[in-house]
Amino acid sequence: MKKQSIGIGLMGLGVVSGQVAKVLTEKADVLAEQAGCPLVLRKIKVLPSDLDREQARQMPSELFTTDDDEFFDESEIDIVVEAIGGENPAREYLKRAISSGKHVVTSNKEVIAKHGAELQALAQQYEVGLRYEASVGGGIPLITPFKYDLIANEISGIYAIINGTTNYILTRMAREGIDFPSALKSAQELGYAEADPENDIEGIDAHYKLAILASLAFQSQVKPEDIYREGISRIASRDFRYAQELGFAIKLLAIAKQVDNSIEVRVHPVFIPEDSLLAKVDGVYNAILVEGDLIGKVLFYGQGAGPLPTSSAVVADIVSSAQDISFGVGNRIKWKLESGKKIKPMAEIETRYYLRMNCADRPGVLAQISRILGDLKISIASAIQKEADIVAQSAEVVLMTHPSQEKAMQQALGKIAQLEAVKEISNFIRVESI
Amino acid sequence: MKKQSIGIGLMGLGVVSGQVAKVLTEKADVLAEQAGCPLVLRKIKVLPSDLDREQARQMPSELFTTDDDEFFDESEIDIVVEAIGGENPAREYLKRAISSGKHVVTSNKEVIAKHGAELQALAQQYEVGLRYEASVGGGIPLITPFKYDLIANEISGIYAIINGTTNYILTRMAREGIDFPSALKSAQELGYAEADPENDIEGIDAHYKLAILASLAFQSQVKPEDIYREGISRIASRDFRYAQELGFAIKLLAIAKQVDNSIEVRVHPVFIPEDSLLAKVDGVYNAILVEGDLIGKVLFYGQGAGPLPTSSAVVADIVSSAQDISFGVGNRIKWKLESGKKIKPMAEIETRYYLRMNCADRPGVLAQISRILGDLKISIASAIQKEADIVAQSAEVVLMTHPSQEKAMQQALGKIAQLEAVKEISNFIRVESI
Repeated sequence: MKKQSIGIGLMGLGVVSGQVAKVLTEKADVLAEQAGCPLVLRKIKVLPSDLDREQARQMPSELFTTDDDEFFDESEIDIVVEAIGGENPAREYLKRAISSGKHVVTSNKEVIAKHGAELQALAQQYEVGLRYEASVGGGIPLITPFKYDLIANEISGIYAIINGTTNYILTRMAREGIDFPSALKSAQELGYAEADPENDIEGIDAHYKLAILASLAFQSQVKPEDIYREGISRIASRDFRYAQELGFAIKLLAIAKQVDNSIEVRVHPVFIPEDSLLAKVDGVYNAILVEGDLIGKVLFYGQGAGPLPTSSAVVADIVSSAQDISFGVGNRIKWKLESGKKIKPMAEIETRYYLRMNCADRPGVLAQISRILGDLKISIASAIQKEADIVAQSAEVVLMTHPSQEKAMQQALGKIAQLEAVKEISNFIRVESI
Repeated sequence: MKKQSIGIGLMGLGVVSGQVAKVLTEKADVLAEQAGCPLVLRKIKVLPSDLDREQARQMPSELFTTDDDEFFDESEIDIVVEAIGGENPAREYLKRAISSGKHVVTSNKEVIAKHGAELQALAQQYEVGLRYEASVGGGIPLITPFKYDLIANEISGIYAIINGTTNYILTRMAREGIDFPSALKSAQELGYAEADPENDIEGIDAHYKLAILASLAFQSQVKPEDIYREGISRIASRDFRYAQELGFAIKLLAIAKQVDNSIEVRVHPVFIPEDSLLAKVDGVYNAILVEGDLIGKVLFYGQGAGPLPTSSAVVADIVSSAQDISFGVGNRIKWKLESGKKIKPMAEIETRYYLRMNCADRPGVLAQISRILGDLKISIASAIQKEADIVAQSAEVVLMTHPSQEKAMQQALGKIAQLEAVKEISNFIRVESI
């Protein structure tokens, strides 16, 4: 029952699917060897408007269809590759492909983060594979390591730089002392940030990816809405100056921790020690640090986006699917998502905090602030006070706390904001010791 | 034909197999879920002398056998885990296990580096799996990524810190300015280096691991004897001082590069730019940087040794083997090793060089050295000359060259050594710009 060839159906005609088609063609020989038989691109499902695009004109026109039924009824397609992105219609397309008995490969983080559990259940029911290596970290191997290599580990933590755009912006701010709007503008000009940058800078992209990684790591369904999320737009160049003075770097981290049977999941800017490996991850690069009971710390680093790295992951998934098809393997892993672990409310997390305030430059201000913190059992690890504006008689006060509970910190912030001598709480950023 | 359980046979009773047995027992439930059925430890093949060891006394005595035939004839064993180490009898044991139709898992770098091709061919013939994730990089996923995740890539280079002992020694030397013998002694006292350290400090361990990685990456059989190898014992604390002055770190790197159809494989100390990520890999940690045409640069980092990380990799391999057995899959990947790529002779490689010499402190010495280099088309990038010893009237001359061919450099070294004004060529270290 060895197949003569395995047919691929592509959905979407963006840069990723264009690159996937290119790799399938150009590397046909080596891929056929690995897959066990030739991989043949049978159909590309596109929108009518796609047909005029340069990418479409470079490929044989008979490959294209704009008709859903024609695509899904094509019996020669064994593997459907979804590269449309977004929640809908990707979700329905993936369900339809799975229900038609086709193995599926997707690079779509949003649909996996939101509907991964549903799609996985359907894939088990129809005994086909569901693969999504490209959905997190571009070409960096992550999903496969979680499903295979790290399987014997109890994962205690994930600390990830998984959005290249924000890491690029923060790197520029750290190196050049420029402010957020300038760094964003520069990132947009270079094509690293979109015209509407919200998805990246508000941590939306990162929180989808974290939902996927945390679900895999903890074998428990972590939904995007379970994740506390904060973006980077509040970070000022002054924060970088203080961070450097205190020995820290500022990164947007996606964090997932497991303590006992409860899970902590959050995406927000953090201070991390400047000598930690994650602090050295600059520019558009991604890095994912995983802690497990057996492996200790392991880190994966690479380009988290772009058509070439993404195609690397998509094609690897296609080859794995093809191997399964050759061997008559349906859905390889019975992935459990019902371990019943609880999501810890944000109010209950405990970290250290960096706090920057603009205060009246007069005696007793620091004492008032310290009293509020002390009453809430938050102890101060270090303090910096600098003259900010001679004319306005204002001073900048920067505090680093010892580990404290978020709830207490939020209460303290509310009370500090009401102090007459405090003109503004300029920023507050959590600190992770990794 | 679903199996009720999958039987494991362990060979050897060292720290790794002890830890593997512990994980199989303590995590039996979660592993059973992933494997598709319970994994049951059936037999442990030991030497008679092992039976008195603490580890043996902690396990039921009926598990143990000292008899080869009893072990290999045990029909309840589906997967044989070899954790004896060394070339023989591991090689014969693995062949016997494969020929008996058992899937095999090994953590043995030497036997895979030397006989991987033979064992793989046998595994294909008998349609069983041969897995060896733990043989390189401890718990760091490497073999699986090469076999699956990076499969669509043409790999152009591997730059790896894959020996924790030497990296620990070099880290101590860099940080504390101590000399090699003191750093080695300290590593031995802490248990990071063996009483007979040759295997680590001479790069033997690293060159086995590189043979495995290069064979996988280039799909061509790279044998240990193909690899140029140099250890770290020649490195002096002075070299670290100059390296730091010039903006470099010193690491023992395992390097594999592919240019056109020829392969360059070597293990030796190198200068690498101090701001490269590999330069930040300190202590016993390992890091493996891989360059591919699609992924660009990807880096894997973690603990490269120790019973816990190694057991993580071994158990992952056991689970993967068990999944294959459950699905009736034999040898999953037809690994090609006959791509016919040539090994480039060391004389033909091209790098930059760092050269440290002890010279007579008088005019014209540098001119003489420069002339020799210039005649061989080696151009100097930077030079440092320092008074070394007033009484002896000697000076230390340090040169960094532009990229030059090894053959020319070796000729130059021969001629420089003959200069009357050159008392000693104290060291010469290759430079990699990664």
